[in-house]
Amino acid sequence: MDYKKASLEKHFEWKGKLEVVSRAKVENKQDLSLAYTPGVAAPCLAIQADESLSYELTRKWNTVAVVTDGSAVLGLGNIGHKAGMPVMEGKCVLFREFAGIDAIPICIKSQNVDDIVSTVYNISDSFGGINLEDISAPRCFEVERQLRQICDVPVFHDDQHGTAIVLAAALKNALKVVKKDISTARLVINGAGSAGIAITEFLLSSGAKDVVVCDRLGILQDDENFNQAQRSLALRTNPRGIKGTLKDAINGADAFIGVSAKNVLSQDMVRSMSNDAIVFAMANPDPEILPDLALEAGARIVATGRSDFQNQINNVLAFPGIFRGALDSRASDVNDSMKIAASDALATLVENPDETHIIPEPFDKRVVPAVAAAVKQAAIDSGVARI
Amino acid sequence: MDYKKASLEKHFEWKGKLEVVSRAKVENKQDLSLAYTPGVAAPCLAIQADESLSYELTRKWNTVAVVTDGSAVLGLGNIGHKAGMPVMEGKCVLFREFAGIDAIPICIKSQNVDDIVSTVYNISDSFGGINLEDISAPRCFEVERQLRQICDVPVFHDDQHGTAIVLAAALKNALKVVKKDISTARLVINGAGSAGIAITEFLLSSGAKDVVVCDRLGILQDDENFNQAQRSLALRTNPRGIKGTLKDAINGADAFIGVSAKNVLSQDMVRSMSNDAIVFAMANPDPEILPDLALEAGARIVATGRSDFQNQINNVLAFPGIFRGALDSRASDVNDSMKIAASDALATLVENPDETHIIPEPFDKRVVPAVAAAVKQAAIDSGVARI
Repeated sequence: MDYKKASLEKHFEWKGKLEVVSRAKVENKQDLSLAYTPGVAAPCLAIQADESLSYELTRKWNTVAVVTDGSAVLGLGNIGHKAGMPVMEGKCVLFREFAGIDAIPICIKSQNVDDIVSTVYNISDSFGGINLEDISAPRCFEVERQLRQICDVPVFHDDQHGTAIVLAAALKNALKVVKKDISTARLVINGAGSAGIAITEFLLSSGAKDVVVCDRLGILQDDENFNQAQRSLALRTNPRGIKGTLKDAINGADAFIGVSAKNVLSQDMVRSMSNDAIVFAMANPDPEILPDLALEAGARIVATGRSDFQNQINNVLAFPGIFRGALDSRASDVNDSMKIAASDALATLVENPDETHIIPEPFDKRVVPAVAAAVKQAAIDSGVARI
Repeated sequence: MDYKKASLEKHFEWKGKLEVVSRAKVENKQDLSLAYTPGVAAPCLAIQADESLSYELTRKWNTVAVVTDGSAVLGLGNIGHKAGMPVMEGKCVLFREFAGIDAIPICIKSQNVDDIVSTVYNISDSFGGINLEDISAPRCFEVERQLRQICDVPVFHDDQHGTAIVLAAALKNALKVVKKDISTARLVINGAGSAGIAITEFLLSSGAKDVVVCDRLGILQDDENFNQAQRSLALRTNPRGIKGTLKDAINGADAFIGVSAKNVLSQDMVRSMSNDAIVFAMANPDPEILPDLALEAGARIVATGRSDFQNQINNVLAFPGIFRGALDSRASDVNDSMKIAASDALATLVENPDETHIIPEPFDKRVVPAVAAAVKQAAIDSGVARI
């Protein structure tokens, strides 16, 4: 099926994938007096007296803004904020369909960090949470860092953390299948953009000790060829001090984690990996190596981001449940313990992982409730819940 | 009925008056590939190549942001942006129920003009139009002026223009009933906030020549007791150079137009007006004078903002049709000719106006289509349409 052609046709038919509907009927003057003036003064004054009533008397408790600047949309790059809207609407559709969340797409006209931060901050109280989306690295780190600090509602950059959470769950189960331990496994991350950096941080905080990160210019080093986020990571990874390119990093590795580009992992590279090699080739839509080729070259477990291969590592496994849990706990943040709880909950849903089942299917109905419950509990335990 | 108590109860029941629903079903992997990746890349690239396709491939064609800073919410004053949300949601409900528009409430955390302008500007392309709401004067004039200049979509402050448009339609019909002409009628506006100033501007551009505007400090003068907008108006009104208070202004007036406060118009003042006096007492919820008292004191036509009296001057007669027309024409602005067209269309719907019927009822099904059609045509004729 030609998804692009079919999708374009569907988009002309949909004329927008979202719709805002009213929960209040307004058919006569009395309805008007209750939903609007003069009656509406009462909930306004109630919130003025007690701000937490925003979560009872308005839709804040169930609403998330999906915000982009259009600078890194899918694999399409910097196509601009207007062209990013179909993806943001799509993301909002997933929030609704997977987790019953009212999500609102906001495409920001500026790609300046300060503009994005002040704009999102100024509108943030209208929502129960902010999902940042498709903002390019390294700006995305600064945007998220600042917004998490100043906003009263949770701010979560899905391209970073959603990917890291699902990936870590899949890796946990894959390591279980091959009977290796994360603290001794040699892990190679290829691609040091927002996802690659977040994945590395997440794996480090999950106990990984031997992580080597590569980008287009080779293995990350603390020098001017790399941006600040990459240099910081170089100092905290690569304990064996390897230099060179992916080819050098991959030699003897237990797992390859690609968030990079089409066909960058050769069969020879896979052959150079350790026994029972794990290959996560997540470049979209064309992976770093096709699953058949990786398996033929000796990989034992292969995962991609694609729905037409086994072991699909898909963000939709994480963000709906994470925001459901954050909203349900009226959390002020999505902190590390909530992210780890989400990842563990996902991994645990696969009771007996094997080579072809290391992660739940996207349409597994158990996923969102399990992730949401874990995230909510972690929010409560870590003191960011407000219920 | 105690509307406030009942409304508060309803608000606890509604838990938010809006909901965002999906127009795209996502029940399996194929659905996901069409509404989201990889298919969604196609509409993104189509918009990148031709921005006008935003109106075809996303919900922009039907979406309005309802924006406040919470500084002048209803008659409640500066209750803050969070407490303003129930009103904004209510306004969005009216957009949906009266005109089928997807409206999204945005409450801005700052009451600084520059912050409001940059925030709204930065998010403006996500919508087909911006409805400013409950922003206090005189800041609202500057916010609207700057945003109209820089935004690519129409920006309309309903408290100013919506009120003016409906009021002007009612006044046109009232003058018809009493057989007076707007160019010779003596008009007194009481209340020089956003609505009063916009009404005055609108009446001046509709041919009124003898307008006297009063505020708490008395008849507007070009001196430091008044803000810039009021001083500017002082120079263009009050041709007979009256000084003093409302009592002085009202003497011999043909029409009183109040957007001020409870009980400020006494029966004695009404008695001092000309024959066939018109009294529009629009303070909400308690009018400047109760209709019975005004009629008893000799007024021939009385209107208020309330639904429980005859001749209700209600913004809901204007803004749904205005935005429907602006969206349908993909207008870049709501300009004066569109506002006048809206007002004329409203007035014309009352075929034979009499003392108790000078304006259509809010639930008259003819209103939105008639206003929308007139506004759309005026947008086309004045060159701001993009269809």
